[in-house]
Amino acid sequence: MQYNNLGKAGIKVSEISFGSWLTFGNQLDTEGVKSCLRTAYENGVNFFDNAEAYANGLSESLMGMAIKEYKREDLVISTKIFWAGKGPNDRGLSRKHLLEGTWNSLKRLQVDYVDLIFCHRPDPTTPIEETVFAMDYIIRNGLALYWGTSEWSAEQLEEAYLVADKRNLIPPTMEQPQYNMLVRTKVEKEFKPLYEKHGLGLTTWSPLASGVLTGKYNDGIPQDSRLAKFENLREEFEKGGLLSQENIEKVRKLTKIANDLGATMAQLAIAWILKNPDVSTVITGASKPEQVEENVKASQIKEKLTDSVMEEIEKILNNKPL
Amino acid sequence: MQYNNLGKAGIKVSEISFGSWLTFGNQLDTEGVKSCLRTAYENGVNFFDNAEAYANGLSESLMGMAIKEYKREDLVISTKIFWAGKGPNDRGLSRKHLLEGTWNSLKRLQVDYVDLIFCHRPDPTTPIEETVFAMDYIIRNGLALYWGTSEWSAEQLEEAYLVADKRNLIPPTMEQPQYNMLVRTKVEKEFKPLYEKHGLGLTTWSPLASGVLTGKYNDGIPQDSRLAKFENLREEFEKGGLLSQENIEKVRKLTKIANDLGATMAQLAIAWILKNPDVSTVITGASKPEQVEENVKASQIKEKLTDSVMEEIEKILNNKPL
Amino acid sequence: MQYNNLGKAGIKVSEISFGSWLTFGNQLDTEGVKSCLRTAYENGVNFFDNAEAYANGLSESLMGMAIKEYKREDLVISTKIFWAGKGPNDRGLSRKHLLEGTWNSLKRLQVDYVDLIFCHRPDPTTPIEETVFAMDYIIRNGLALYWGTSEWSAEQLEEAYLVADKRNLIPPTMEQPQYNMLVRTKVEKEFKPLYEKHGLGLTTWSPLASGVLTGKYNDGIPQDSRLAKFENLREEFEKGGLLSQENIEKVRKLTKIANDLGATMAQLAIAWILKNPDVSTVITGASKPEQVEENVKASQIKEKLTDSVMEEIEKILNNKPL
Amino acid sequence: MQYNNLGKAGIKVSEISFGSWLTFGNQLDTEGVKSCLRTAYENGVNFFDNAEAYANGLSESLMGMAIKEYKREDLVISTKIFWAGKGPNDRGLSRKHLLEGTWNSLKRLQVDYVDLIFCHRPDPTTPIEETVFAMDYIIRNGLALYWGTSEWSAEQLEEAYLVADKRNLIPPTMEQPQYNMLVRTKVEKEFKPLYEKHGLGLTTWSPLASGVLTGKYNDGIPQDSRLAKFENLREEFEKGGLLSQENIEKVRKLTKIANDLGATMAQLAIAWILKNPDVSTVITGASKPEQVEENVKASQIKEKLTDSVMEEIEKILNNKPL
Repeated sequence: MQYNNLGKAGIKVSEISFGSWLTFGNQLDTEGVKSCLRTAYENGVNFFDNAEAYANGLSESLMGMAIKEYKREDLVISTKIFWAGKGPNDRGLSRKHLLEGTWNSLKRLQVDYVDLIFCHRPDPTTPIEETVFAMDYIIRNGLALYWGTSEWSAEQLEEAYLVADKRNLIPPTMEQPQYNMLVRTKVEKEFKPLYEKHGLGLTTWSPLASGVLTGKYNDGIPQDSRLAKFENLREEFEKGGLLSQENIEKVRKLTKIANDLGATMAQLAIAWILKNPDVSTVITGASKPEQVEENVKASQIKEKLTDSVMEEIEKILNNKPL
Repeated sequence: MQYNNLGKAGIKVSEISFGSWLTFGNQLDTEGVKSCLRTAYENGVNFFDNAEAYANGLSESLMGMAIKEYKREDLVISTKIFWAGKGPNDRGLSRKHLLEGTWNSLKRLQVDYVDLIFCHRPDPTTPIEETVFAMDYIIRNGLALYWGTSEWSAEQLEEAYLVADKRNLIPPTMEQPQYNMLVRTKVEKEFKPLYEKHGLGLTTWSPLASGVLTGKYNDGIPQDSRLAKFENLREEFEKGGLLSQENIEKVRKLTKIANDLGATMAQLAIAWILKNPDVSTVITGASKPEQVEENVKASQIKEKLTDSVMEEIEKILNNKPL
Repeated sequence: MQYNNLGKAGIKVSEISFGSWLTFGNQLDTEGVKSCLRTAYENGVNFFDNAEAYANGLSESLMGMAIKEYKREDLVISTKIFWAGKGPNDRGLSRKHLLEGTWNSLKRLQVDYVDLIFCHRPDPTTPIEETVFAMDYIIRNGLALYWGTSEWSAEQLEEAYLVADKRNLIPPTMEQPQYNMLVRTKVEKEFKPLYEKHGLGLTTWSPLASGVLTGKYNDGIPQDSRLAKFENLREEFEKGGLLSQENIEKVRKLTKIANDLGATMAQLAIAWILKNPDVSTVITGASKPEQVEENVKASQIKEKLTDSVMEEIEKILNNKPL
Repeated sequence: MQYNNLGKAGIKVSEISFGSWLTFGNQLDTEGVKSCLRTAYENGVNFFDNAEAYANGLSESLMGMAIKEYKREDLVISTKIFWAGKGPNDRGLSRKHLLEGTWNSLKRLQVDYVDLIFCHRPDPTTPIEETVFAMDYIIRNGLALYWGTSEWSAEQLEEAYLVADKRNLIPPTMEQPQYNMLVRTKVEKEFKPLYEKHGLGLTTWSPLASGVLTGKYNDGIPQDSRLAKFENLREEFEKGGLLSQENIEKVRKLTKIANDLGATMAQLAIAWILKNPDVSTVITGASKPEQVEENVKASQIKEKLTDSVMEEIEKILNNKPL
């Protein structure tokens, strides 16, 4: 397993990491969480991603129980704050919710601090200055080591850097955007100036485009798939055009390349992201230990992605942002 | 119930809020406080206002007992510091009293932090820089989330903003001025530049002009009224001319409008304040649950205050600051 | 009793205060300390001065026991850090000694914080920047509310203000210089620019010029006097020329004025200092309650010091700094 | 024993100090550590150097047990953070490792704070700004009193000073370089501008050039020597040319001078360093109390190093950096 700096920051994260979204507390109970985590850890994964919103906090509670078996220093633990409940102050990036959310997440995770803490979305109802002040407070009080954002725009991030610089506050270290073969603009174009200028790191999510890149939707939506089960997911798919015929066609062609490399389509999709030097870590999900093992093997597939293979893939994708 | 940002700040307060002044510890005992609070909460009120000075601290103690039945995150709790006793350092905005006052208020309220903390009055004997340093300290130590002032002048607030900017200190978020149909200059004129420039929020008090706007003094001062009982209140009334024949006349005309809208005079008075977009929340008082219910219904009356009704009211009031 | 701001700061100190130097732990045991303190407190004194050096810490321990009988908010408690022992890091204004000294003083005083903390002398072996950083740290950590210096020069204070301004650190609030009818230059001339420019407050010590201004040395050094007992005190006297024939002559003349006003010479000496508007409080000592009572009566004598009496005194003293 | 300021800082360190490297936990057990420490302390040594890396933390644990017998204020205790284990975040100067490393060192040392904390090496994978922010955090949280570096370049130190100045962070106070008769360039040339400009202090290590300056390798490498036992040490020797014939020749000549002064060669080597006014303290090692005694006597030898003796030594060394 390769360990990367998180952007310019000194902390090291495994290039493949493990997220709890949609699995912890949904498909996985205590024992399931423990065995997936153990497999990931034993395969070199050190970064475990979470959020207060996942399974209404249950995801953090499950991870909290599981990580007690590890040396704290060996883990990079994250959470994200934005949605904790239905009350008027249970969401968003106000000082009130950021602090209360963080205090509650730490209790559920049973730790004194998380390594990474994210503003899970931008909050247009709160000034960015208030948010940066609060994140700085969280770090200066030892509740987290580094802070970042998720799904913010480059413009919002620039404002955060500006405020931090002006007020001597600790600036963001990383962003958590969606990024995969089919969704590329933000990471490859919009954020481009931020990497060198501010040393922004990326912890990317949805490497398989919600499963599209596994090829499992190539012949329609299987009845037991997440897409069949979660309506809001299906809507998002339709809105984003993820399941267009064009995309299905691409996946079919890519699968052929994957097979030629001795890889699954999922491994190829993950390995392709690992080739991007601006990405610090790819967050992968799994509902069983074997899936974890399959995911981490993408590290080896990365070695096989020569320039010519990458060009071939680019030709198929044909969606490189200009 | 509508929830507003507190000025530009991310925290959300119910547009109608509940204050303990003159009731907690005076007209209300533990059970009375609990049932009023419960009614307010169940009607969507989330902001509960208090002060170290109210009933010599008893008001905070009573509220402290009552709020233990709620989830802390659901509440926006305030206190105000200025008058705690008779000692030379028991009043004012010195670092000594602000810190000691806050520590004591938190103990009485039985909470780790209040959401909002106010400098209850300006203190000409303490430099504003000392006060801003102390309020910043209170927030950075997690004793409060936002700080503000009460009955400060625009000039004093500007100085506070200046010091905060120069010293990288946390600036004030809100002011708590008196504001109602009969007392308008400060909110509508003096503070006007502060709303856009600094995003100042307002938590206004005395929506009924100490009862004048209920119409209960239309035919003289009733024997069991607060005005009959509290001499200092009566003096203030006389000084401010609140009970002038002119005002009584206005109240009589406004009552007619209220009746036409199916509202009590009090509801109209509150609703009229809610129409002011610079007001974040109107602090109302009540000595019984039914009164709480009457107050919160002003939210619905607000919907009936069309432009033409507002013009009609303006014509009657005839006191719009230029 | 009159309460003054400490310079421009908001905290209020009684114009006559009570110091423990040379008495607590030397002439006074636990009961003695308690009864002197009680008398002072009941006569309106709220500021009680101390130092880690006094009686090797015993003075603080005794005061710590005595003040437990009072409401913390009613007291203004000070200590001073500079000499705690014989080790190489037990003295001076290094970050190490300032922090360790403060932690130990608070333990002896049995309080969470002192109101005022002083750098007991300048320390040429430590950069003023290091000292200001450490004092700022002490205040930001809630160990003290205000910090100041004792027997620093105006130049050293200016440097402290400069560093504090540049680094956004909390500047000094007060100085504790020697000041009395016979020692005037520092307070009346050297510090003059600091009062208006920085709002420096003064807590002056030695109002009686180590007893000279009581008249008790008018006829030589009595065998049971402090001067007879403490050699280093006698040396300092000689160096400063305090017991010169000229001074004795002045004291004799002043005693006559005192008698005319119905005051003791000591009361006149204290009252004369109270007339200086740049002095926030005069620290007085006492080894028995009656002495405390005599001292505080100087407040009343002050009222009798009309312009013409002050002129008469000035003519006798004839030492006004130009 | 002479006590020096640590550069310009107010803290005082004995000019000869005692380090635990290679001895605590290797050659010395609990009793051995205690008796060496006691001997050093009784001979006036107040600075005891350590690091998380020494004997994998055991060195700190042993010192932690030993120092409980002393008054905390009498000791200047250090540790250094860089290597704590094999995990990706167990080394370097990231915020994560600096904080976790410090927390763990304090536990092993059983103290609330160390006096001095060092970044044990430069870390090219972490921005210096992140490191300075973390060290500032460590000091502002009371975990250490002063921070410094070890084996950093002048350029890296300049960058740290720049960041600290720009961000109002606490700058480094001291460096811990290798320095002895045979290794001089860094201390005497590269760092020269830092002493006056920033008041940098030095706590130098390897005064005997890993034993070469004792003369024990004059006739080859003895079988029971450290050099025979530790291969990596031997490699470093070869790389640095420490055991060149030229050096052996110098040592032989210097030994003659030592004997003329009634000193051992080791004492002369230490005393020669003490003559450098830019050095705050020389860290010496010992595996038995007698060695400690021998080392501290170098203080007396220093007095014998007149200008002419120093010139004679310089002629033999013939390696003064230009």
